[in-house]
Amino acid sequence: MGVEIERKFLVCGDGWKALGQGVQLRQGYLSSVPERTVRVRIEGESAMLTIKGISSGATRSEWEYPIPLADAEAFLNTLCERPLIEKKRYRIPFEGMVWEVDEFFGENAGLVVAEIELAAEDQPFSRPDWIGEEVTHDRHYFNSSLIRNPYSTW
Amino acid sequence: MGVEIERKFLVCGDGWKALGQGVQLRQGYLSSVPERTVRVRIEGESAMLTIKGISSGATRSEWEYPIPLADAEAFLNTLCERPLIEKKRYRIPFEGMVWEVDEFFGENAGLVVAEIELAAEDQPFSRPDWIGEEVTHDRHYFNSSLIRNPYSTW
Repeated sequence: MGVEIERKFLVCGDGWKALGQGVQLRQGYLSSVPERTVRVRIEGESAMLTIKGISSGATRSEWEYPIPLADAEAFLNTLCERPLIEKKRYRIPFEGMVWEVDEFFGENAGLVVAEIELAAEDQPFSRPDWIGEEVTHDRHYFNSSLIRNPYSTW
Repeated sequence: MGVEIERKFLVCGDGWKALGQGVQLRQGYLSSVPERTVRVRIEGESAMLTIKGISSGATRSEWEYPIPLADAEAFLNTLCERPLIEKKRYRIPFEGMVWEVDEFFGENAGLVVAEIELAAEDQPFSRPDWIGEEVTHDRHYFNSSLIRNPYSTW
């Protein structure tokens, strides 16, 4: 098991976009209930099954298993809840940390959020000027919520 | 992906019990919806994550991944839906086939079912005299249903 400590922010403007190369992510959920999410994700030619427990603050237990690409494609195409999440992820280094900026498409088009992974909930970090309001604790922005209640419907 | 073709029957009497050695299974679900079940199972020292699609007749698509025992224990102890399924499985050879007889405990105590795995839906097989009514198509007997609606409540 790993423990994921992550803070999430809205993003202002598009100054971030030139700072990293985006990679396409396609993901879906075999379970999207907050107590036990089961996520399937394809990034390039690699695929991962990720199980997460419920969040406590910015912290969540997480288990990851690499799976064959063909299995992940079958899950996304035939099994996962609808809609799938389609997004482009930019990894942007800033003052010794890496921000992950997710630009959503499909039913969540228009949404852009930035996440930073920390070693402890109170770890200090600097914010680039394109970082806006914090939404770590707002369940609407959970990817598993964005399939039930996509950004286009807000 | 595998395809599982399985027929399930009630069991009459306990003549079957002396014919095989039971092994304890402990399993739970990260998703129990029929369209996409995610099962965690511990058998002895080995653990498996199994994903199944919806049934069509006696046939179901199935993907299995071995996982570390400690992960499975964490899933069963902290994440899976309640109650867990506790059962003893007896593998009983009969006329060239193997019957799996599941004797349930806990909230499903009193329930005993037998399953046979086939290579095709119409594959012929012989039934031992302790095999009763077929329940292949009765969702009440799905293990994923037995956590929502345990046998003790029928």
